[in-house]
Amino acid sequence: MSNKKEIPYKIYLEEHEMPKQWYNVRADMKNKPAPLLNPGTHKPMTFEELTPVFCDELVKQELDDTTPYFDIPEEILSFYKMYRPSPLVRAYCLEEKLQTPAKIYYKFEGNNTSGSHKLNSAIAQAYYAKKQGLKGVTTETGAGQWGTALSMASAYLGLDCKVYMVKCSYEQKPFRREVMRTYGASVTPSPSMDTKVGQKILAEHPGTTGSLGCAISEAVEVATSTEGYRYVLGSVLNQVLLHQSVIGLETKAALDKYDIKPDIIIGCAGGGSNLGGLISPFMGEKLRGEADYRIIAVEPASCPSFTRGTFAYDFCDTGMVCPLAKMYTLGSNFIPSANHAGGLRYHGMSSTLSQLYADGLMEARSYEQTKVFEAAQEFARVEGILPAPESSHAIRAAIDEALKCKETGEEKTIVFGLTGTGYFDMYAYQAYNDGTMSDYIPTDEEIAASVAGLPKVD
Amino acid sequence: MSNKKEIPYKIYLEEHEMPKQWYNVRADMKNKPAPLLNPGTHKPMTFEELTPVFCDELVKQELDDTTPYFDIPEEILSFYKMYRPSPLVRAYCLEEKLQTPAKIYYKFEGNNTSGSHKLNSAIAQAYYAKKQGLKGVTTETGAGQWGTALSMASAYLGLDCKVYMVKCSYEQKPFRREVMRTYGASVTPSPSMDTKVGQKILAEHPGTTGSLGCAISEAVEVATSTEGYRYVLGSVLNQVLLHQSVIGLETKAALDKYDIKPDIIIGCAGGGSNLGGLISPFMGEKLRGEADYRIIAVEPASCPSFTRGTFAYDFCDTGMVCPLAKMYTLGSNFIPSANHAGGLRYHGMSSTLSQLYADGLMEARSYEQTKVFEAAQEFARVEGILPAPESSHAIRAAIDEALKCKETGEEKTIVFGLTGTGYFDMYAYQAYNDGTMSDYIPTDEEIAASVAGLPKVD
Repeated sequence: MSNKKEIPYKIYLEEHEMPKQWYNVRADMKNKPAPLLNPGTHKPMTFEELTPVFCDELVKQELDDTTPYFDIPEEILSFYKMYRPSPLVRAYCLEEKLQTPAKIYYKFEGNNTSGSHKLNSAIAQAYYAKKQGLKGVTTETGAGQWGTALSMASAYLGLDCKVYMVKCSYEQKPFRREVMRTYGASVTPSPSMDTKVGQKILAEHPGTTGSLGCAISEAVEVATSTEGYRYVLGSVLNQVLLHQSVIGLETKAALDKYDIKPDIIIGCAGGGSNLGGLISPFMGEKLRGEADYRIIAVEPASCPSFTRGTFAYDFCDTGMVCPLAKMYTLGSNFIPSANHAGGLRYHGMSSTLSQLYADGLMEARSYEQTKVFEAAQEFARVEGILPAPESSHAIRAAIDEALKCKETGEEKTIVFGLTGTGYFDMYAYQAYNDGTMSDYIPTDEEIAASVAGLPKVD
Repeated sequence: MSNKKEIPYKIYLEEHEMPKQWYNVRADMKNKPAPLLNPGTHKPMTFEELTPVFCDELVKQELDDTTPYFDIPEEILSFYKMYRPSPLVRAYCLEEKLQTPAKIYYKFEGNNTSGSHKLNSAIAQAYYAKKQGLKGVTTETGAGQWGTALSMASAYLGLDCKVYMVKCSYEQKPFRREVMRTYGASVTPSPSMDTKVGQKILAEHPGTTGSLGCAISEAVEVATSTEGYRYVLGSVLNQVLLHQSVIGLETKAALDKYDIKPDIIIGCAGGGSNLGGLISPFMGEKLRGEADYRIIAVEPASCPSFTRGTFAYDFCDTGMVCPLAKMYTLGSNFIPSANHAGGLRYHGMSSTLSQLYADGLMEARSYEQTKVFEAAQEFARVEGILPAPESSHAIRAAIDEALKCKETGEEKTIVFGLTGTGYFDMYAYQAYNDGTMSDYIPTDEEIAASVAGLPKVD
């Protein structure tokens, strides 16, 4: 292939080409994402109401839907240089395996110890906490990527870090826990008896193995009741999408450097942090009428917020201590089946992405997890990287789109986000290798029951 | 620091700057490493004697101690591009933490799914096996990095791959096993009942948890008794050092690009694959009298081949089916204490490195594992990467040398090899985090007893 010589396998930006600003896609949206609401008054959350929970500077970012660019502070740029730029890789081997005329690229965010893109926002949130003179931060983690990322960022800045880890993950992923401990974080299985909300949930559901929504409630309670602490969140929020825009900005810079114009951009979606970050500059062009792209969100069939959820205000957490967000949601009590190993378990979705989806600016699809792991294995064998189950949703969609090109003969350029590595997901791979992995799709009745509990907002 | 602007955090060579040839350090050695001997006749092993075990082309490389450069085949260069060049990272954060005037660089080989430098030789050996029209390869693995690397390379080339995994690792590291299975390899705990040598060892030591030397014997037996198979080895051999020279060549090219001249080069040493690869071009300059460097091998105090072993002919394996190699050895029956979690467990050492060490061209030192994990944790917290226990031996030495510079005020430039990541070593990290990790240093009597079994060679 002649283009092998022109375009390197891995496009690494040079340091001076790295983004110096984050991009805020909301600034270019005509229909702005709906504001967070106070769960008591149903009025938009104010700066004053949010600052007991989040750092001041992050609240400003959260509420600002008009400023298109935010300077990345020098200290964060410096930290980014430890593991960024991440490579944009041409999947030559996968293309050859599929015998597709499509050109496939992936932005690989797994080359850091947190194993994912989560570090991009973790360092930003920890930085603002440190700058505000705080002692520490609290958070929740499910699979553990976010908790690991925040532990790393906190260790680097000398902040205390308290992680509430969904109990079933805490037990099934002891190694994730140990990575966080190596970085000096305290890790507590959630629900715990440390918090009122944990005690309440345990009293009502004694055998519960926890959920992200429940761990969020605990982390928020600890942050708001402990002097010098704030809560930080790894997804869903506007501020997180802002920080994660570094993924998309680097991707776009790398593509532009070689005059590559993508046709399709694909990202996996749980709460939206990766997808929102990856697509933001492309969506910006689309919103401004400068370019057009097909943008595809991929989610698990067992937790199908976009494809089967309701676009409405809902609680972000199980304990209902957080503000209400308007989003595609399955209901804050929705918990994916225990046999779901593929991550992306959050009941809701970023408000920004929800609005973009509602406005028809992106597509969404869902896959059952055995199909996802099939793609993961195929990818691993030819591209060398063992992908995270989450990321593998995007791989599945990219392969399917590339196979469509094979049928039609179209030479489309497909870019997808490879958010991380699967080194801590080997139980799931083992189930797949052993043929014992099963699929689960919630019934319409289950979803209807869980959505029935949505708060009533006029 | 003004040089922050000049020298990037991570020096990535461009594709066209990547080495196109491997460097064979033996060509520049006046005292050549002693040849492998036939264990029966004690005469040097011939091409004909070695080719039933190893691929023809690899035997040629093994026996050639005069050709300085070997072209890297195009297919291997292409595979290297999937994960190479690896970055040469300036450890700015570690330097700041240590408050040292020393400049510390590390060559990071962990950014691929095998998690280490092992892939550099795995793809080469698999390639020559494929080129020879073989069906498959056999090997042993301890911690699992080599087995994973070979599984990846075999999957890429469509070769069958049979891995004999030291039983205690097989049981303690099920996730490593699953990574290999994901890449389509068969993984058998060693000793097994599959082989005569395994049956014999199990009969003599029914409760044994295995050793590298034993797994080697099994893998060799299967390769030599199965049509279309050959054995491949991830360390010790000259051919492996040849392939691994890509590490050193890239390191040197990256340093040269920014006019950096190292004073001290540090690598961990088990069988010598990483150390030999990293130092080879620097050692070449030293051998040719063109430059001088301090070169330091670092090994675990619980398996101290260089620092407390005997320089003599010994078996490479427990079953004594392999040729004899002249090397620093603790005796082929030496097995490090079970509480040793830090890797680098091989009883012997590369013949090439052994000769260089005997000739006073490099230094060696050993560390107890708690000191190694202390360095690992310190490094992880500031540099972001969770290092493999093996690599952390080099970190320990680099930190100690940097602290010496702090005392003396010398601005030395230290380069060390960060061979891989510790994601599959979290049991060991857990023991360190929990304070339950202990150290073990073999007594003089234990080493004397094990060395007493060395074969008598005139």
